[in-house]
Amino acid sequence: MDSNDLVIYNGIVMTVNPAFDIHRPGMVVIRGGCIVETGPRAPGQPLPPAPRHIDAEGGIVMPGLVNTHTHLPMTLFRGLADDLPLDQWLNAHIFPAEARHIDARTVRCGTRLACAELLLGGTTVCCDGYFFADQVAEAAAAMGLRAVIGQGVVDFPAPGVPDPAGNVEAARNFVDRWQGRCPRIHPSIFCHSPYTCGRDTLVRAKTAARAAGCLFQIHVAETEVERRESIAAHGRSPVGRLDDLGLWDEHTLAVHAVWVDRDDIEVLARRRTAVSHNPQSNMKLAAGVAPVPDFLAAGITVGLGTDGCASNNDLDLLREMDTAAKIHKVTTGRPTVTDARQVVEMATIAGARAIGLGDAIGSLEPGKRADIVVLRADRPHLVPVYHPASTVVYAATGADVRHVLIDGHLVVRDGVLQTADVKEILADARQVAKTIARKH
Amino acid sequence: MDSNDLVIYNGIVMTVNPAFDIHRPGMVVIRGGCIVETGPRAPGQPLPPAPRHIDAEGGIVMPGLVNTHTHLPMTLFRGLADDLPLDQWLNAHIFPAEARHIDARTVRCGTRLACAELLLGGTTVCCDGYFFADQVAEAAAAMGLRAVIGQGVVDFPAPGVPDPAGNVEAARNFVDRWQGRCPRIHPSIFCHSPYTCGRDTLVRAKTAARAAGCLFQIHVAETEVERRESIAAHGRSPVGRLDDLGLWDEHTLAVHAVWVDRDDIEVLARRRTAVSHNPQSNMKLAAGVAPVPDFLAAGITVGLGTDGCASNNDLDLLREMDTAAKIHKVTTGRPTVTDARQVVEMATIAGARAIGLGDAIGSLEPGKRADIVVLRADRPHLVPVYHPASTVVYAATGADVRHVLIDGHLVVRDGVLQTADVKEILADARQVAKTIARKH
Repeated sequence: MDSNDLVIYNGIVMTVNPAFDIHRPGMVVIRGGCIVETGPRAPGQPLPPAPRHIDAEGGIVMPGLVNTHTHLPMTLFRGLADDLPLDQWLNAHIFPAEARHIDARTVRCGTRLACAELLLGGTTVCCDGYFFADQVAEAAAAMGLRAVIGQGVVDFPAPGVPDPAGNVEAARNFVDRWQGRCPRIHPSIFCHSPYTCGRDTLVRAKTAARAAGCLFQIHVAETEVERRESIAAHGRSPVGRLDDLGLWDEHTLAVHAVWVDRDDIEVLARRRTAVSHNPQSNMKLAAGVAPVPDFLAAGITVGLGTDGCASNNDLDLLREMDTAAKIHKVTTGRPTVTDARQVVEMATIAGARAIGLGDAIGSLEPGKRADIVVLRADRPHLVPVYHPASTVVYAATGADVRHVLIDGHLVVRDGVLQTADVKEILADARQVAKTIARKH
Repeated sequence: MDSNDLVIYNGIVMTVNPAFDIHRPGMVVIRGGCIVETGPRAPGQPLPPAPRHIDAEGGIVMPGLVNTHTHLPMTLFRGLADDLPLDQWLNAHIFPAEARHIDARTVRCGTRLACAELLLGGTTVCCDGYFFADQVAEAAAAMGLRAVIGQGVVDFPAPGVPDPAGNVEAARNFVDRWQGRCPRIHPSIFCHSPYTCGRDTLVRAKTAARAAGCLFQIHVAETEVERRESIAAHGRSPVGRLDDLGLWDEHTLAVHAVWVDRDDIEVLARRRTAVSHNPQSNMKLAAGVAPVPDFLAAGITVGLGTDGCASNNDLDLLREMDTAAKIHKVTTGRPTVTDARQVVEMATIAGARAIGLGDAIGSLEPGKRADIVVLRADRPHLVPVYHPASTVVYAATGADVRHVLIDGHLVVRDGVLQTADVKEILADARQVAKTIARKH
């Protein structure tokens, strides 16, 4: 028996297993960082022996949340430039701010701020793409987060990669350095988009990812302009063009996929490529609404992401779930689509599959790593609980997260982060933000 | 000097006055339940004398939030019937549940649960419409909330009004009983809709409201079906038909107004009728998206509401603000519409005007009642703060509310409700919910 072994009891256990079993009240037994048992437990029934027992006090117990698209260091730009046209936002604000302020030190600072927010809000794993990926990975590893971390690739000078000729090499080296280094950190290659990376870069980057056996991520078909220009320049939609280049397979993650037609959807389904759906970012930037009900009907795996804090402006996956459930109802006119159960699956098991971790995490099933969230039960907006999936999707936010476990370790306990000093993180971020505000 | 007089200092004061002045750092001086001064205050500068000083610790200080559309007792149905077609939701679940379970006791229970959620989430005033309005008003008054409370009117047997022949009379009597009874409670008449109230009922109800000088509320043009059937039956859009009946003026609140055309918008603008915009409910029920940018362009006052908990499923106006800012960007394709400042105004001063209280509340200006919210500053998702309106709209939720004052009284202090026992309220609601679940 490991001193970290524990039993969580007296909760509403939402397993997100294939049958979507709910045990009310139920328990979860954890040994050696893994789930060994979940099931119902009547009040008064004796608990399995363990060094620790956690009383969920009637709260919902569910898999840790999976955020399939982030740019962690961009927490530093949260609220810097809102309510602007997309090109002005990117070219007059975000890109210049990155060029001026992003370095190894600020990336570490912004990532730590992001990790604090993610963990406190119940996200146990994210899939990130940014520059200075070593610093992102180090900060995430130190704070106990699980993460797929992509080194960014663009065909122009980027933070940390001044010469674009070395962009794919930099990404490959990052992957080499981090494979096998920390069991919770999975290195990845992140090509920014088909319009910021040329054909050669795209193919070489995917080839490198394939050789390393790591996830390849790419923003694709985010805006109407991108689609229009791709067709004008290449005679192909963004998704179609990347298919011609052989980029789609089950180890590539298509991020956004808003401007896709029936053929594009068929391509993604046939290649078994998963999609990261980021509804709040797509709404805020007026990009559009991805056809998620069509993705699901085509059998495409859809994970849920917040995107970076410059376009959301938070990393709260519980709030994203609420939006994901509602936006497709209103755009399709069908209140039955993207129901609460489907959205819970997107934010857990489907997200885990989308980023290549479906066998290890994403549900409360024996054999899986013990990445677990326990929600509060004592807040007015969480009462009553008729259907736990409804409560989670339509009423809860990250602030309702009480305990968070990763690999069976309590990284958040009673709403308090255990792996870093939040006060220090906030003070550091405020200091960097002062410089950014002054020079913006 | 009153023992309740106080000074709030060391905050980012977002006044929401006509110039949208922000004092950073700033202070608010409160005497006799009113704001007497707001302004900048340099660190170290002496504070005006007062029995109490509240250190906002760098948090945003803003007007109390105004929720312009609620059905408070429906917290008891939160999550009971989600992801369903609208007619099935209403006719197979909500109406039968109301007929079976709504009485004076459950209305009190659900209202208390709602008031706890509203106050803890920074809402200091709501505009409600439901049945057993006496019980709603009593519970809200006892918990220290400010509220416009409408007695519901429909032309079929309703909870507490078994004979529809007495529906307008019941509403008039409610208004008579409550006018002048409690300075924070403003009685009102709430006709459910043009399709549940006949012509005669509508006219008599508005006449009664006009005679009493109280607000008249009505759901209108919520769904496409409603619009289509109105045109088929009356040859007029819902808004046009109610104009023919003389229902629109500045003391009527048009709730939803989703399915409106250019003529309808012109009617509402000309009659100086305000609109309650409830985006999350409209999304969840797949009703549609109200043309808020067009309303604003036409000079219509737009307040923000959550609607009831059966169609949202929470009463968190800060989350509603985030949705209100984003939904119009994506549906119009313009990321500049409904910017953070406009949305803050909708949730405060414009909402106050919409429900007839614009002279008394809705902004931090000398002479106004001291309805004030102080947000936390110590949460990762609230750092950095480049523009306070952006932080409030795009990052904050009700859980970030630290202090709430109504008439200068601290009704929430450090996140703890001061006017009722939340544990007792939750236990009571869970008990009622058990019965509802069993008999549903």
